[in-house]
Amino acid sequence: MVTNSLGRPLPEHFFGKTVHPYQDPYNRKPVGNHATRPLRRHNPGDKKLLGNLRKAIEASGLRSGMCIATHHHLRNGDALLNLVVREIDNLGLRDIRIASSSVHPVHAELIPFIKKGVISGFECGVNGLIGEMVSRGELDCPIIVRTHGGRARSLITGEVVVDVAFIAAPSCDCYGNMNGFFGPSACGSLGYAFTDAQYARCVVAVTDNLSAAPVTPVSIPQSLVDYVVEVNRLGDPRKIVSTTTQITRDPVGLQIARYAAQVIDASGLLRDGFSFQTGAGGISLAVAEQVRRMMSQAQIKGSFGCGGITGYFVDMLEEGLFRTLFDVQCFDLKAVESIGRNLHHQEMSADTYANPFNAGAMVNLLDCVILGATEIDVDFNVNVNTESNGYLLHNTGGHSDAAAGAKLSIITAPLLRGRLPIIRDTVTTVTTPGRTIDVIVTERGIAVNNHQQELKEELIRRKVPVRDIHELREEACRITGEPHPIEFTDEVVALIEYRDGTIIDAVRKVKE
Amino acid sequence: MVTNSLGRPLPEHFFGKTVHPYQDPYNRKPVGNHATRPLRRHNPGDKKLLGNLRKAIEASGLRSGMCIATHHHLRNGDALLNLVVREIDNLGLRDIRIASSSVHPVHAELIPFIKKGVISGFECGVNGLIGEMVSRGELDCPIIVRTHGGRARSLITGEVVVDVAFIAAPSCDCYGNMNGFFGPSACGSLGYAFTDAQYARCVVAVTDNLSAAPVTPVSIPQSLVDYVVEVNRLGDPRKIVSTTTQITRDPVGLQIARYAAQVIDASGLLRDGFSFQTGAGGISLAVAEQVRRMMSQAQIKGSFGCGGITGYFVDMLEEGLFRTLFDVQCFDLKAVESIGRNLHHQEMSADTYANPFNAGAMVNLLDCVILGATEIDVDFNVNVNTESNGYLLHNTGGHSDAAAGAKLSIITAPLLRGRLPIIRDTVTTVTTPGRTIDVIVTERGIAVNNHQQELKEELIRRKVPVRDIHELREEACRITGEPHPIEFTDEVVALIEYRDGTIIDAVRKVKE
Repeated sequence: MVTNSLGRPLPEHFFGKTVHPYQDPYNRKPVGNHATRPLRRHNPGDKKLLGNLRKAIEASGLRSGMCIATHHHLRNGDALLNLVVREIDNLGLRDIRIASSSVHPVHAELIPFIKKGVISGFECGVNGLIGEMVSRGELDCPIIVRTHGGRARSLITGEVVVDVAFIAAPSCDCYGNMNGFFGPSACGSLGYAFTDAQYARCVVAVTDNLSAAPVTPVSIPQSLVDYVVEVNRLGDPRKIVSTTTQITRDPVGLQIARYAAQVIDASGLLRDGFSFQTGAGGISLAVAEQVRRMMSQAQIKGSFGCGGITGYFVDMLEEGLFRTLFDVQCFDLKAVESIGRNLHHQEMSADTYANPFNAGAMVNLLDCVILGATEIDVDFNVNVNTESNGYLLHNTGGHSDAAAGAKLSIITAPLLRGRLPIIRDTVTTVTTPGRTIDVIVTERGIAVNNHQQELKEELIRRKVPVRDIHELREEACRITGEPHPIEFTDEVVALIEYRDGTIIDAVRKVKE
Repeated sequence: MVTNSLGRPLPEHFFGKTVHPYQDPYNRKPVGNHATRPLRRHNPGDKKLLGNLRKAIEASGLRSGMCIATHHHLRNGDALLNLVVREIDNLGLRDIRIASSSVHPVHAELIPFIKKGVISGFECGVNGLIGEMVSRGELDCPIIVRTHGGRARSLITGEVVVDVAFIAAPSCDCYGNMNGFFGPSACGSLGYAFTDAQYARCVVAVTDNLSAAPVTPVSIPQSLVDYVVEVNRLGDPRKIVSTTTQITRDPVGLQIARYAAQVIDASGLLRDGFSFQTGAGGISLAVAEQVRRMMSQAQIKGSFGCGGITGYFVDMLEEGLFRTLFDVQCFDLKAVESIGRNLHHQEMSADTYANPFNAGAMVNLLDCVILGATEIDVDFNVNVNTESNGYLLHNTGGHSDAAAGAKLSIITAPLLRGRLPIIRDTVTTVTTPGRTIDVIVTERGIAVNNHQQELKEELIRRKVPVRDIHELREEACRITGEPHPIEFTDEVVALIEYRDGTIIDAVRKVKE
């Protein structure tokens, strides 16, 4: 057992790997070279189109013990990962690791295949039932949760070798040129799949919208794609992207958004060149709405919006409030429609978005990011992976990446969620270190991290309700009572990897 | 001494490398893995902008004996390579190899630095005086001529390691996002520079058009760029791209173009989905004009135009004759203007364009390409590198790549050039093997290669003047007299590398 700099006890080894304990957000230097893969040759006339998924798996050379990946742009509408695993099972392969960019509740269909030994573990975070069952000891399946930037890093450094990447390609030609912009399963940006296309040892494009002529715009080019396969449906379009993402109407959420906007205003960052990221949640969008108004009123021309993109950010681009959107993932249909036609709505790889081990990720240029939390501790450490029942229910996404990059990282969260206080002495799991978090905004006040002393003073001067984080914690506990501590066994079932490849926390089996 | 399959005698070693003799166009398989380079880390707040080129060279870690590269999108207007070499000399570095995508007459300024030992050789083809002086033994400077696809291959396989790439960036921000679309030195596509950005051990963006906000569209992203430097001028805009490229008015050229169009028509390839490449020469454009008329009249919807792009192809895109342009290099201002605004005018890397060692280059999908020649032999081998005086005066460009890829490779050339016959018993230098050439079109008739028997019969049926290639040779020689054989010494001064890395010919010092 080892302990990292946040005092979190970690196993020395997990899932066949040596654990490097988390130290701090910025100082770990990469060692060695980029990962590589075999060279190949395709002559004129060589065909790539194969009859079905089974033939593609056979052609790919996938064997038991290897690792596959898919991307999660189709989110909870994705049919591909389930299809692929079913075929892998049909072929009798076992002990396959999954290194997808994320796994969603729809992939609970994989549970029988985990039990059967077809899947032996996840080199990525999971959303939903799989994580819950692993937390409860009902599934024996190690999980290493990675941030979006950290996943790109793990492929680029060779820490994770993807033997076969199956890339859901909403628009694809017979030679493998693809984009996500058009077709029945259009998802917009293919940002997470770029690294797979460049580093997987074999790349299979899977489409439900095949064309003969070269598909344009080309997001991933033919020169990276080994095989092409047609399937009936990549997924359920109703669940791939939402038709609308909505600003919260909840008065608590709206109060939080107003406070968050006041923090941004007080920070001095809201000037020409402002860059901004939010998620797609109702509070995030409410903050975006506030920011949009402030920018319009003060005639501020921002530089870029970044990360997962909503129609809300598309409006801001079209109103001239941003010059560019850098889009790693489209959150709604309006974003999908925009990225297919607007040269300033720019598709971006997860590597360029958030990988700490390249020549400079986009998150490094962020002025402000609005992030969520399931729990926050009095050192500003944030948990987004486990719920207060101890179950591993959520993937990290770009949370730690954007927090590390942005000049101002704001966590917006209600002080209470149901009967549970959000701010605690310690979080169940650390996802994002407090050192990269600047401000916590709740409906009952704002806590500012010590390293942001000037901002704190400015907020006090502006009579924004700044509170000590311990005070907020106590206020919450007065209402809910002290939260009942969850009891865990010693058995580690998952690791939370920080973006630089060190381990920031371990998830243990819940005692029930 | 070894001999390749075309009977060309080659040295066993040259410029520190073992010579692999050319065998055939399609069968050499790549061995091993993609080249790699050190991982790096840039934290938020780290600056990339350096005060001047000297500081960038120092920061890059360039030392004597290393290799640098630039791209040639600025063509004969390029100021950067000369600037860089001058600074390298100022820093006292020696024995530097140049692996640029091409070198132009303007780079004759490098000659004193070659003589001084600052530059010790070229890992790329050269246009102009440097090659002439090397051919005459006046410069001791080995040259390895590579095709555009072959250069990409050499970086990707690691056969050539570029220690520092200096990328001329007509539009660039302080963090290295760049495109070639805008600014005083706008050149359009940065196609040749992509491989450098991905494989050079250090990447320096050099710009005369720096902006603070992220530049969009992003052609090469910040995540690949280590340093950014501002200079006064990247080049002479009048020479970077021509304002217009013109169809020939020469009756000989127009006759050749008409015959070439008849060949295309007879080939059966001119149907919906037709894909096409031409160069920017007057005859090529005249062929394009013929093809455009035939497509319009028959209401044919082509799939794509490819390679170096002219305004002529932009018109065809906008008229709906092509769905897409895949652009590795803009040949005129109209192409530059188009690529910056039209999502179907698609920037393409040299790798995707033409590298034989990837999962399938764009040339593999070409129906027809129109190419030039300085000499052709009776086996259809083509020379574009040396002139009939034996001097190495031209780079290969995409000649061998497109010829190997296209279903129909047409060489257009006048039977005589000045007082010299174009068709000969043997060419001075083999650039492109005859096996990849289908038809030679001259103003006095058309020679069809033996492997295109059906096409030959169809042309005869259509009463197009098909001639035996020996007959054409004799006709030319009757007019000009037998060409005087050039005398060479045994000293090899340059190699002509085929796209797969084998050596198709050697260039020897001319006896004078």
